[in-house]
Order: sequence, then C-alpha cells, then structure tokens
Amino acid sequence: MHVAIPLYPRFTALDAVGPYTVLAFAPGCTVTFVAAEAGPVTDDQGTLTLIATASYADLPAPDVIIVPGGPGTLDALSYEALLGWIRQAHEHTRWTTSVCSGSLLLGAAGLLAGVKATTHWAILEMLAPYGAEPVSERVVTEGKIVTAAGVSAGIDMALTLLAQARDPETAQAVQLAIEYDPRPPFDCGSPKNAPEGTAERALALIT
Amino acid sequence: MHVAIPLYPRFTALDAVGPYTVLAFAPGCTVTFVAAEAGPVTDDQGTLTLIATASYADLPAPDVIIVPGGPGTLDALSYEALLGWIRQAHEHTRWTTSVCSGSLLLGAAGLLAGVKATTHWAILEMLAPYGAEPVSERVVTEGKIVTAAGVSAGIDMALTLLAQARDPETAQAVQLAIEYDPRPPFDCGSPKNAPEGTAERALALIT
Repeated sequence: MHVAIPLYPRFTALDAVGPYTVLAFAPGCTVTFVAAEAGPVTDDQGTLTLIATASYADLPAPDVIIVPGGPGTLDALSYEALLGWIRQAHEHTRWTTSVCSGSLLLGAAGLLAGVKATTHWAILEMLAPYGAEPVSERVVTEGKIVTAAGVSAGIDMALTLLAQARDPETAQAVQLAIEYDPRPPFDCGSPKNAPEGTAERALALIT
Repeated sequence: MHVAIPLYPRFTALDAVGPYTVLAFAPGCTVTFVAAEAGPVTDDQGTLTLIATASYADLPAPDVIIVPGGPGTLDALSYEALLGWIRQAHEHTRWTTSVCSGSLLLGAAGLLAGVKATTHWAILEMLAPYGAEPVSERVVTEGKIVTAAGVSAGIDMALTLLAQARDPETAQAVQLAIEYDPRPPFDCGSPKNAPEGTAERALALIT
C-alpha cells in the first residue's frame, strides 16, 4: 500500500506526521511526502522543515492520499498543481483522506459535493460552500472519502484506516507499538467540553 | 521559553513532532531542532527527513530539551557529542525531558541515577543499568527531569509541561487548538489492556 502525503507551505506538522507515523509502522505500507517539487517544505510555525522526496508528477496514483491542514490551507486553495493532483489521484485511490483544514482542499478539488465531511472545529462552516455536509465528529467516512477533525485527529483516522486496509490485529499492534494510550491532562480537546473562554484563547493561537 | 529537540539518525518522527507541535503553538515559545551539525536528519523508516536548523554548539543552554527516541537510540548511546550536549544543557535547563527510548540517552548522559523514569513499555528494564528507577506510567516527573512513555506519550508530556511553564489555561487552549480529544479506535495502547498476542506483533514492528 502506497500512501502519499502532500506538503505545502505552512502546513501543521502533526497533521502530517501523526498519520505518517501510524502508517509507516505498518508492514507492507510505504509513505511518501510529495509536493509541487521535491525538496524542503516549511510548516506553519516556520521552525520545522520536512523534505518532500517526490513531486506530484512522480506519484500520480497512490493507493491512499492524506491531505494535511494548517494555516497555509487558505493559500493552497488556489494551488492548481495540488488541487489537480488531488483530483487525479482520487480517481485511483482506495482512500482519499484529510486531516484538519485539509478537507477544504478536498472540497476545492471538487470531491465533497453531497459528501459528509469534517474539519477543525473552528472552521466547520467553511465546508458547506463546497457542497459538503459538515459533521462534527472525530473521523467521518463516506465511501472512500475519510476526513478527520483538527490536527491530532489524524492519528485516530490512520489507525481506523489501517484496521480496514489490513485487519484490526495489525492496527492494534501499531497502536501498542506507538503506545497510543492517550492521557490528555485536561478534558478540553473539543469545544463541547472545553471550559468557558478556552475556545477564544485557542482561536487566538491559530488565526 | 526556548525548547531544543535533538535529532539523530533513525529517531521516531512522532516522538519529536508531537511535543514540537504542542509547544510551538504556545505563545512565547520557540522550538529549535538541533543535531551534531545543522542539516537533514532521517527517521527510523527512512522516509521522513527533518531539517535541524542548529548544531549542538549553536544552542548550548536552552530552557527545555526534549530527547526523542526510536530504533536509532541504541547507536546514539555512543554519540558523545549528543550525550555531552545533553549533560551540559541539563545544567541550565528548567526541564530536561525525553520521549520513548530517549530516556536511555538521559541515562547514558548520567542524569538518571536514583531518578524515577519511564520509557517505551518494551524496554522498561533497560533503564535500570543507569541507576534509574523504572516506572510504568505515561509521564513521570522527578524534579526537573520529565520522561514520557512510548512515541505518542510526548503529546501528553508537552501539554503537562506547558501547564506548568505557563498556566493551565494556556495548555488547555493549545489542547483545544490541536483538537486533542483522542478517540483511539481500540483499547490496546498499553500492554496492560492489549489483547493477547498484540505485544508480540507490536515488538515485531519495532525491533
């Protein structure tokens, strides 16, 4: 199974590296970071640079694509090379997926018309203009389109995909290998349970 | 607050990028990836390369260090430049921390004698030769030394540190910003609750 993760300027690192780590641990799974051109791509903080080892042209038909989000998504909505690659890859994929605001790129590529999808809680209403049906869930699967909520949700999505792509035993082995037995120090990772004022403070960090 | 994350060949990507993403989102916090020399460092799968933007010599006294783990840790136990930097940095840090097998490097640097510490479940007994007291917990704090369990535990550790470095409200805002409301698809992220046979399959993936 060949997985491609496109990188673009100002992506959020964990959106990409969470699912990457899950799937790269799985036997028989190869993950490649792609970009408009092979080479370095810097994240939303300007302090982490990942190397894309292939261009979109190098990898037109991966089995799975995982489109990360981040503040750079808004600019990326006009990157025709990226949108064209998503559109073309989708014709061949087993799964077309996104994390966080990456789902807006699936929408801009024309893939979400009439499709239930999710994204980061702060921008859920931005899915509607693409004809998507916004859903406030951690991971949303509709056919072969799988969208995850904000940033860290990509880890849950990747384990869910792996259980389907291989079998639950393999996904469980990876979950144990990465010791994914989360113990968040607070019960505030969703706007539904965050204390008053937290959403405003979170928005100030990401906008 | 200046945070330094040392990279060495065959580190595990999520060990580094989980805490990085948490802390880099926090206001007033700068995270720098360091290595023996500034430049690219490739992970345990050979498919993800991160750029270290500074050498150890460039950053001798950060406020916090986060030492990631990975299969490359065993080789890194003899990297004197890395161990020397950890030892020297520790004299000045507010926190000296590790994720996964990174705690073995704290041990090899001589920092764990008589200290409660943790690491990936599969290698917990490897801490004892360094004089550490191995503890099977998600995040272990003893004085300014904070060690996290395997791979994904670095996210929990970083949020815990941030709550102390700043205040709980800031850590909660970051937790919500990265939508860290985990919903693992299985209850198997710890050897205590994993189904029979899962540990053997997980070990086959990481060794």
